[in-house]
Amino acid sequence: MSTTAEHGRPPGPHPKPDRSPKQDRSRATRQRLLEAAVACLAEHGWAGSTVSVVAERAGVSRGAAQHHFPTREDLFTAAVEYVAEERSTALRALFPHGTTGDTRAVVTAVVDLYTGPLFRAALHLWVAASNEDQLRARVTELEARVGRETHRIAVDLLDADESRPGVRETVQGFLDMARGLGLANLLTDDTTRRRRVVAQWAALLEQALA
Amino acid sequence: MSTTAEHGRPPGPHPKPDRSPKQDRSRATRQRLLEAAVACLAEHGWAGSTVSVVAERAGVSRGAAQHHFPTREDLFTAAVEYVAEERSTALRALFPHGTTGDTRAVVTAVVDLYTGPLFRAALHLWVAASNEDQLRARVTELEARVGRETHRIAVDLLDADESRPGVRETVQGFLDMARGLGLANLLTDDTTRRRRVVAQWAALLEQALA
Repeated sequence: MSTTAEHGRPPGPHPKPDRSPKQDRSRATRQRLLEAAVACLAEHGWAGSTVSVVAERAGVSRGAAQHHFPTREDLFTAAVEYVAEERSTALRALFPHGTTGDTRAVVTAVVDLYTGPLFRAALHLWVAASNEDQLRARVTELEARVGRETHRIAVDLLDADESRPGVRETVQGFLDMARGLGLANLLTDDTTRRRRVVAQWAALLEQALA
Repeated sequence: MSTTAEHGRPPGPHPKPDRSPKQDRSRATRQRLLEAAVACLAEHGWAGSTVSVVAERAGVSRGAAQHHFPTREDLFTAAVEYVAEERSTALRALFPHGTTGDTRAVVTAVVDLYTGPLFRAALHLWVAASNEDQLRARVTELEARVGRETHRIAVDLLDADESRPGVRETVQGFLDMARGLGLANLLTDDTTRRRRVVAQWAALLEQALA
């Protein structure tokens, strides 16, 4: 699920030793653009997010930005995918030994994926894609890839046995709930209510998966 | 939670007998505008939805539209609220005797609230409000009212006893899941997956609320 891999770059955060300084600079520029693009989408929405605005925010010339991302669609889908990968990696790193048996900690960490700037950015992209045909196919494909990866992580961390009937749908419904909690946090700070819902559903999930 | 009530009009679908034909026409115009506004938001998003576009779609002059709704914010928040009320009324009408003991039927009907044009319209409004201060306060207040009403209906139809610890949060988490399922249906037809998730989560809810 790696855009970077599709462009022939290594998926990890550290450049390989055989890379030239010029390649490293190009890679750093690309990352700055991707991070600026997600921040821009989260703050200004799709209508306010152009390649020029992102280039300025990243401190990169418009020409350099277009060298990396020929179209606006390229830039923003790559950006949401890049940040989704970063978040997945960070989530796995929180539980380096896989499942901990602490369902509540896992549920909390997964729900956290849906309440930050990445979710806001992704939401703006999804909603824009629902009215723009060019963007729609790209975002649908991206959403499927990111969704599959998040599902895989949730199954691993919850130690869920998907060969048992209903377990797959239990995990899917939990991820739908996490997305819904993200939406509920869009206009107001929903932290207090969310904590209570997470505590209760962590207990219900633990029973359902036991 | 009725915008119509705020404007001094009766909340029910039937005009009172003491209304004049002129008042009836005005009321019919207002309803046409509200329905056209929701359809427009769902299809074209906030950026493509202006008072003029809605007036044309409703077959109403721009002046008449502005007589009913002085600002764009007035029109679209009233529209989402109006249709949300219509949907709530329809949901209650599906279960005229309140709870049926059929959790799956109730869960399916509640989830259906989040997968049609009303949810798409509301989503466009929420996302636009997250970047527009003028709209934000209005939509936040609207969302709270509609959310409370949906929660009340879900509690009634599920026959949930909120005096028991955890029951309130169980119902809230279910409604968050329903919202997440709506989001998952935005770009692709998610019906098949959603049916399986609903079947499983109806069983989980039934156990949790028993």
